[in-house]
Amino acid sequence: MARVREAMQTSRLEAFSDGVFAIAITLLVLDLRVPELGGSGGLRSALGHEWPQFAAYLTSFLVIGTMWVNHHSMFRQIRYADRGLLFVNLSLLLWTTLLPFTTKLMAHYLRGAGSNSHTAAAVYSSDLLLCGVSFSLLWAHALRARLVPHQMSPAEQRQSILRFSVGTYIYGATVALAFVSAPITLALQFAINLYYCFEQVRARPSDPELTSDDGGSEPA
Amino acid sequence: MARVREAMQTSRLEAFSDGVFAIAITLLVLDLRVPELGGSGGLRSALGHEWPQFAAYLTSFLVIGTMWVNHHSMFRQIRYADRGLLFVNLSLLLWTTLLPFTTKLMAHYLRGAGSNSHTAAAVYSSDLLLCGVSFSLLWAHALRARLVPHQMSPAEQRQSILRFSVGTYIYGATVALAFVSAPITLALQFAINLYYCFEQVRARPSDPELTSDDGGSEPA
Amino acid sequence: MARVREAMQTSRLEAFSDGVFAIAITLLVLDLRVPELGGSGGLRSALGHEWPQFAAYLTSFLVIGTMWVNHHSMFRQIRYADRGLLFVNLSLLLWTTLLPFTTKLMAHYLRGAGSNSHTAAAVYSSDLLLCGVSFSLLWAHALRARLVPHQMSPAEQRQSILRFSVGTYIYGATVALAFVSAPITLALQFAINLYYCFEQVRARPSDPELTSDDGGSEPA
Amino acid sequence: MARVREAMQTSRLEAFSDGVFAIAITLLVLDLRVPELGGSGGLRSALGHEWPQFAAYLTSFLVIGTMWVNHHSMFRQIRYADRGLLFVNLSLLLWTTLLPFTTKLMAHYLRGAGSNSHTAAAVYSSDLLLCGVSFSLLWAHALRARLVPHQMSPAEQRQSILRFSVGTYIYGATVALAFVSAPITLALQFAINLYYCFEQVRARPSDPELTSDDGGSEPA
Repeated sequence: MARVREAMQTSRLEAFSDGVFAIAITLLVLDLRVPELGGSGGLRSALGHEWPQFAAYLTSFLVIGTMWVNHHSMFRQIRYADRGLLFVNLSLLLWTTLLPFTTKLMAHYLRGAGSNSHTAAAVYSSDLLLCGVSFSLLWAHALRARLVPHQMSPAEQRQSILRFSVGTYIYGATVALAFVSAPITLALQFAINLYYCFEQVRARPSDPELTSDDGGSEPA
Repeated sequence: MARVREAMQTSRLEAFSDGVFAIAITLLVLDLRVPELGGSGGLRSALGHEWPQFAAYLTSFLVIGTMWVNHHSMFRQIRYADRGLLFVNLSLLLWTTLLPFTTKLMAHYLRGAGSNSHTAAAVYSSDLLLCGVSFSLLWAHALRARLVPHQMSPAEQRQSILRFSVGTYIYGATVALAFVSAPITLALQFAINLYYCFEQVRARPSDPELTSDDGGSEPA
Repeated sequence: MARVREAMQTSRLEAFSDGVFAIAITLLVLDLRVPELGGSGGLRSALGHEWPQFAAYLTSFLVIGTMWVNHHSMFRQIRYADRGLLFVNLSLLLWTTLLPFTTKLMAHYLRGAGSNSHTAAAVYSSDLLLCGVSFSLLWAHALRARLVPHQMSPAEQRQSILRFSVGTYIYGATVALAFVSAPITLALQFAINLYYCFEQVRARPSDPELTSDDGGSEPA
Repeated sequence: MARVREAMQTSRLEAFSDGVFAIAITLLVLDLRVPELGGSGGLRSALGHEWPQFAAYLTSFLVIGTMWVNHHSMFRQIRYADRGLLFVNLSLLLWTTLLPFTTKLMAHYLRGAGSNSHTAAAVYSSDLLLCGVSFSLLWAHALRARLVPHQMSPAEQRQSILRFSVGTYIYGATVALAFVSAPITLALQFAINLYYCFEQVRARPSDPELTSDDGGSEPA
């Protein structure tokens, strides 16, 4: 098959992506700064005053962590890589490596209620949206280029693309919400990712794709 | 078995964790700064004056290094991963990536004797405590979800969870100690981790779990 | 064969290179700074004013990403490593790790039209040129030391070295262009890498080397 | 054999070390700063004026790169790991992760001729010395704990330990030289590592240990 000939294993793509995810998630900490103590009030109140930094840190940590878990899940099903997949994956990594910057921007303007906080929240939400879009493209490309060894009907393919695109719709909505309130936007993004974690954990046993495909080979 | 079907290999989880541990342990160095030389006194005394930075650096390096060694040991026994394990592991990584920040905070306020030094030491100790709690949860989850291929009696399971929870109790005690003295807290944390290193090295040959399980397959 | 005896597998070389590429591509984000807002104008115009930072970020991300894809392709054909290969690869990594610095320099002086912008663009282009030269040397060394298991005629070898040297000639030309205009130089480098991406993606199916060599073993 | 039972594979130790080496070598670039231009003179002379940064960068890059190559070579011969090896390896990583700091210190005081430059050079040289000592300990521990599957006579063992200790003696000498001149110390360290690279590359084909051990299994 001509298709198979140009394929390659995904191991190095996964290793490179793991590296970028691991570095991006760890670089977030560089934006947590030791507070300068002003005249009155001790370190405790100064740390409390820095809540936007901690809130943005926690949200972005959860976002990148969830992305890594989903990337992991997706690449358990994608068995081969072509160069198209490498470059769609690179676009996902581009928006991921931007997160330490957009998180810093969000944290810096979170407190203010004016249009600057809306701009910062819209930039942050757009970054998450572009991550979501890249995820959808990754899966759609993998299905179209037959890098997934499943037998899936066209209806099943559409359904699975939809499932991987949930993030896209939700993050699209938070771009609009950013122009209402930056703190509410961040709180929603945190809640979505937290829900997504637990939902995924609970939903797993009945996930038909994985049970049909992984049962035999992997744990052996 | 339904259990086995949802399992996956731990290799990518280990690779991602190794990445985060490696980055966190290396980012610690960014807080060591070239001292600005004041009027009198040369570089040597200026470096000596920065002892809190070096003491906190060394302690956190030892903490993350010991955590990596323990993570390594634990995942030689955990053979499969489910999504629950991924997220408990993410919580461990969350508290680990915070360490460069809490270390910087500790170093900055270590010298002062007032309540700010107690706050900084309590934040640092709490971070270590949360790492310890995550470790216990990781092992407890792995046993409960049968991700460990050993045959262990309930009594053995409880005992092994206790063994992985020693850090939790010790770090819990250092949170209280933080309100007495920050330097003593740091010195104790350094000593515990140093003892733990050598103890583990010595104790290894008689460790029944590893000898029974790893002897056959791995070194072959 | 004496040749084979000194050979070793390329897996750890690839893992180390992946690590360096992943870190270099992620460190680029540290140069994106939250803008300080002056008297008039909000965050939106302040971010717009920082276009050189974003343009340089995007270009260098694309450059390192494309290098990683090419490194990946090259090492699917290089099966063994000798110490010479390790050190030629180190020289490639040297120029790659410099990129966060030369990118920052380029971004900082991009706006100005004077000789400083030419100097910055020439330094940046020279860095890319040295990356290109290292790539050519890597492939030439691999062929000369027979680390590639293909049967290639001398003519095919020359042709394949030429193909891996295209970057060298193009980046050489951009060193000269730097003394005309820094923004045009950066725009051209961005365009070249973008073209290269899509070209490579399209060109893949008819690539004779890969189809003849990888078809059998890898996707199995 | 009791010995074998406590052994484990070295793959995760190598992956973690590769990560730390890759990060440390890449973090060096953060100390290269865009020069602030003073009244007269352009960017070109300002960059020239920063030669200590570039000289220290290049030397430390070469040092870490050579260490990685040697670590790679050593672990092609060390087949098993025990916890003692993990902790000796951690001590090597400790001194390696310090290098971005000691390099920055060296670069900052390189120009001055006074006692501060001697202190900085002595700190830098001591860091390299401790890396060398850790390397010797790593190899000595591996031989003593029989983690190397070779049959080596006691005389061969002593000789191989000596061979891995050359760096220790040389770096010990540069600690003393630091009190004479910082620039000469750095130049010598650069020259030694450059020589070591080429020497190693040339010496490889006749290296008896590798040819006897690796020929059969690895390139297959």
